Amino acid sequence: METPQDRKDSRNAGEAHPSIGDWESCAADPQYRAAVLDLLGALAYGELSAFERLAEDAKLAPTLDDKAALAGMAAAEFQHYRLLHERLVETGVDATAAMTPFAEPLDGFHRLTAPADWPESLVKAYVGDAIASDFYREVAVRLDDDTRALVLRVMSDTGHAEFAVEKVRLAIEADPRIAGRLALWGRRLMGEALSQAQRVVAERDALSNLLIGGVEVRGFDLVEVGKMFNRITEQHTRRMAALGLAS
Amino acid sequence: METPQDRKDSRNAGEAHPSIGDWESCAADPQYRAAVLDLLGALAYGELSAFERLAEDAKLAPTLDDKAALAGMAAAEFQHYRLLHERLVETGVDATAAMTPFAEPLDGFHRLTAPADWPESLVKAYVGDAIASDFYREVAVRLDDDTRALVLRVMSDTGHAEFAVEKVRLAIEADPRIAGRLALWGRRLMGEALSQAQRVVAERDALSNLLIGGVEVRGFDLVEVGKMFNRITEQHTRRMAALGLAS
Repeated sequence: METPQDRKDSRNAGEAHPSIGDWESCAADPQYRAAVLDLLGALAYGELSAFERLAEDAKLAPTLDDKAALAGMAAAEFQHYRLLHERLVETGVDATAAMTPFAEPLDGFHRLTAPADWPESLVKAYVGDAIASDFYREVAVRLDDDTRALVLRVMSDTGHAEFAVEKVRLAIEADPRIAGRLALWGRRLMGEALSQAQRVVAERDALSNLLIGGVEVRGFDLVEVGKMFNRITEQHTRRMAALGLAS
Repeated sequence: METPQDRKDSRNAGEAHPSIGDWESCAADPQYRAAVLDLLGALAYGELSAFERLAEDAKLAPTLDDKAALAGMAAAEFQHYRLLHERLVETGVDATAAMTPFAEPLDGFHRLTAPADWPESLVKAYVGDAIASDFYREVAVRLDDDTRALVLRVMSDTGHAEFAVEKVRLAIEADPRIAGRLALWGRRLMGEALSQAQRVVAERDALSNLLIGGVEVRGFDLVEVGKMFNRITEQHTRRMAALGLAS
């Protein structure tokens, strides 16, 4: 159960956390550097694969306007990819090599959650965008100033999925029978996302050390990370309810 | 055969042509207004369908970098779509209705020219981008100041396909046998583009009147339009040669 204090922590996350220094000073620690490059690689590939899947799902759109709305989200994801990719290149790392370890889990997520129709596409676009936003906001407080500024910049361009909320509501009003199926679909999206996230944590030492506090990681600890996943799951539950769906 | 004078005319097209007035004054003529709304509808749908097909063709990319390059072109086309769509909305017209007549010919073009592999995708991206640029540049001189400014703004963001030139050259070097097939492919792309363009001209009275000088259209005439199509075809021929392909 989320307390008012948790909510306040989450809301102020971007500003309240003390600075741990800039990228240059933090990256002197090779494990911190490896962890952040992992994170940027995962986010960059995540944005590129989101582009791909949204562009694909736009084919299911019943009208030109709907298609353009989803295509617009895809184009925004590509801009996010570009920003993250640029930063990877700036660090001097091989950007493709940094992204490659995350291709399989992210492609796997999308393969296992290919929408069967337009309402499923809308729910996925909305839920996916929101979970990504939540994750960006949560992870931002754990980062050096430069990386946090990048993450917040990418995040500030989200919200392209808001159009989906009204569309899903209208679809359920028009045919209340789909609500049950879409509620199941929302649970499946969250379940597959958590399952792939666990896979990544299991396979990527640097990143998981950063997340579970295995290295000297400036305020990370297991309890904190557990709370983070709880907050994201609770926010998902609230959003599903806002869509008129049990979760 | 193109003369140096033709080349000069083409190169200076954007600046040298005298102004015919702004949108407000020109749009007082209902046929001019209808013709320009047709043009904007065609360009907008063209950009949206280009987004869709480039995103689709990006799946054929052999590497992450190649995929990102084509995805980047797709994202740029979406921005073009957005600019053109905004202008349609500003004119007070139903933007979807303005685009709809061009959905079938443009979808038809893409359906008939679905690339079979990555080199065909590259050639299509390059040739398609270039033909679009040529057409934008040519049509710009025939428009009122406001519409021309929009068309030139969209056009100034092209050139995303340059990466394809080097890639196609390298692919032909690696396997010279594909040159013949890609040369045929280039001819087919141009042929299908002209065929769909003719279909549009046959079906859209306002637009074709504008193009063939059927109304009082400020400098349009059949000879001029014939020259325009010749210039675009000749530029295509030169580009194919630059790719190492006979056309």
